[in-house]
Amino acid sequence: MQQIVECVPNFSEGRRPEVIDAIVAGILSVPGAHLLDVQSDADHNRTVVTFVGQPEPVLEAAFEGARIAARLIDMAQHSGEHPRMGATDVIPFIPVRGVTMDDCVQLAGRLGQRMGQELDIPVYLYGQAASRPERTNLPDVRRGEFEGIRDSIGSDPARDPDFGPRRLGSAGATAVGARAFLIAFNVYLNSDNVEIARKIAKTVRHSSGGLRFVQAMGVLVDGQAQVSMNLTDFNKTALHVVVELVRREAARYGALISHSELVGLIPQQALLDAATWYLQLDGFKPDQVLENRLTA
Amino acid sequence: MQQIVECVPNFSEGRRPEVIDAIVAGILSVPGAHLLDVQSDADHNRTVVTFVGQPEPVLEAAFEGARIAARLIDMAQHSGEHPRMGATDVIPFIPVRGVTMDDCVQLAGRLGQRMGQELDIPVYLYGQAASRPERTNLPDVRRGEFEGIRDSIGSDPARDPDFGPRRLGSAGATAVGARAFLIAFNVYLNSDNVEIARKIAKTVRHSSGGLRFVQAMGVLVDGQAQVSMNLTDFNKTALHVVVELVRREAARYGALISHSELVGLIPQQALLDAATWYLQLDGFKPDQVLENRLTA
Repeated sequence: MQQIVECVPNFSEGRRPEVIDAIVAGILSVPGAHLLDVQSDADHNRTVVTFVGQPEPVLEAAFEGARIAARLIDMAQHSGEHPRMGATDVIPFIPVRGVTMDDCVQLAGRLGQRMGQELDIPVYLYGQAASRPERTNLPDVRRGEFEGIRDSIGSDPARDPDFGPRRLGSAGATAVGARAFLIAFNVYLNSDNVEIARKIAKTVRHSSGGLRFVQAMGVLVDGQAQVSMNLTDFNKTALHVVVELVRREAARYGALISHSELVGLIPQQALLDAATWYLQLDGFKPDQVLENRLTA
Repeated sequence: MQQIVECVPNFSEGRRPEVIDAIVAGILSVPGAHLLDVQSDADHNRTVVTFVGQPEPVLEAAFEGARIAARLIDMAQHSGEHPRMGATDVIPFIPVRGVTMDDCVQLAGRLGQRMGQELDIPVYLYGQAASRPERTNLPDVRRGEFEGIRDSIGSDPARDPDFGPRRLGSAGATAVGARAFLIAFNVYLNSDNVEIARKIAKTVRHSSGGLRFVQAMGVLVDGQAQVSMNLTDFNKTALHVVVELVRREAARYGALISHSELVGLIPQQALLDAATWYLQLDGFKPDQVLENRLTA
């Protein structure tokens, strides 16, 4: 089965199209890197690029994007609403198919080392790739932003990068890491009572005692109660487990699920897991899917 | 989205490996034809080849297989348990993805015409491609087998082929057609009572009043009651509809589904349909599956 890694680098440029185009062109100059999405925001002055491919070309393409961003973006001149610390602000590797989290942690380490050595950029490993527990969460790594890190990196040992120099140049610093695929998933109830959606959200989300890899809130959308969720690791907290818990909790308040929606993309595996669970297909193998034979 | 057609030609040779190899090599000589399976049976003296690809290469590869079979197999010398009428006995085209049944009917017509003209083989269109209602079912087309058709094709207008000559050479005649993908699917009950499986089979199968595209029987497998089914058109009778009807009928007799199994391959769409139905993902589009973006 074909291996697929997703990479979603964030660059500190959302206003100059020629710079954004040059970075994207650099990424796509690597054969085997497939672009899925580019989103630029002028207020944030930031661009999020989503691309996928097999591990080696994805690693190479991420390096190319960072190399060009470092040449074209001067962090000393940068301003924007979104917190940022580098021309390439953050690079997560995300396992999609035939690749483990450990594989992505290793990719992060290799990219970090190259960026430090060849681009002279301080790199902090974060997420699942973090070398220290206090660097797991990106906001903690980025605290103080470009200016704060520039002023403390040489003197504060807590600011020592995993790779690269203990000083910030015009490209700033970059967080490189690994995380699970995030699924944005909303469930609508046959109710206009947002309180029911809020109660369900409280039950299912991790922060208030629910499922480990679920963030949730209850909102009203066009007069319909909605449980809006991020599933932050579908391999560990499955989509169908979330739906069935929402369904059960809704019934408690006399409500039913009217429909649900995916925002954006989803790895095939998340839907195959749901299908095989509901159909009780014990022993199902992904290579029983005809199309998966063609990409083998 | 990539177009995929499946083709499952049956050849009247299951004993001479050098002939089977030559036919398969001919099919695979066409770039874009991907082999999924080859099954030979010496008693039946027959080989079933399964391959897939985009429509044009699949058409070309089917022709290559038939051309080589016609050269290497002499039906006057052939014997075997399975009914047969030609060196290439039957060629069905099956829509898998991004292709309609009409597309496959057209492929059947184009292949039939080429086989008639270039290989001088009588071709009968069958299945969804049949030109006469009495040719829809393959056994009706093949009635009398090679010998019976050879003796009547010149005189009986009911035997007039759709393409090619009104006489049989050593390659015999071929049925070329289009049909839906067949899913072999078994449901196991938490019961050793085969009568319950038989009652469920009777309720769900088309022949005794059940769902249009379901064949079913109740059997005992290793002491466990099983509903054994063929789903002959999952686009019209969905997998999840079958499972939920089996589940409901089983409950009537105090039984539950313990698990189910797929025998062989399944198109991705059948499982995506099940996932989106159970998860109530109204508005889901197949190109929201990340992997489907890569084959676009």
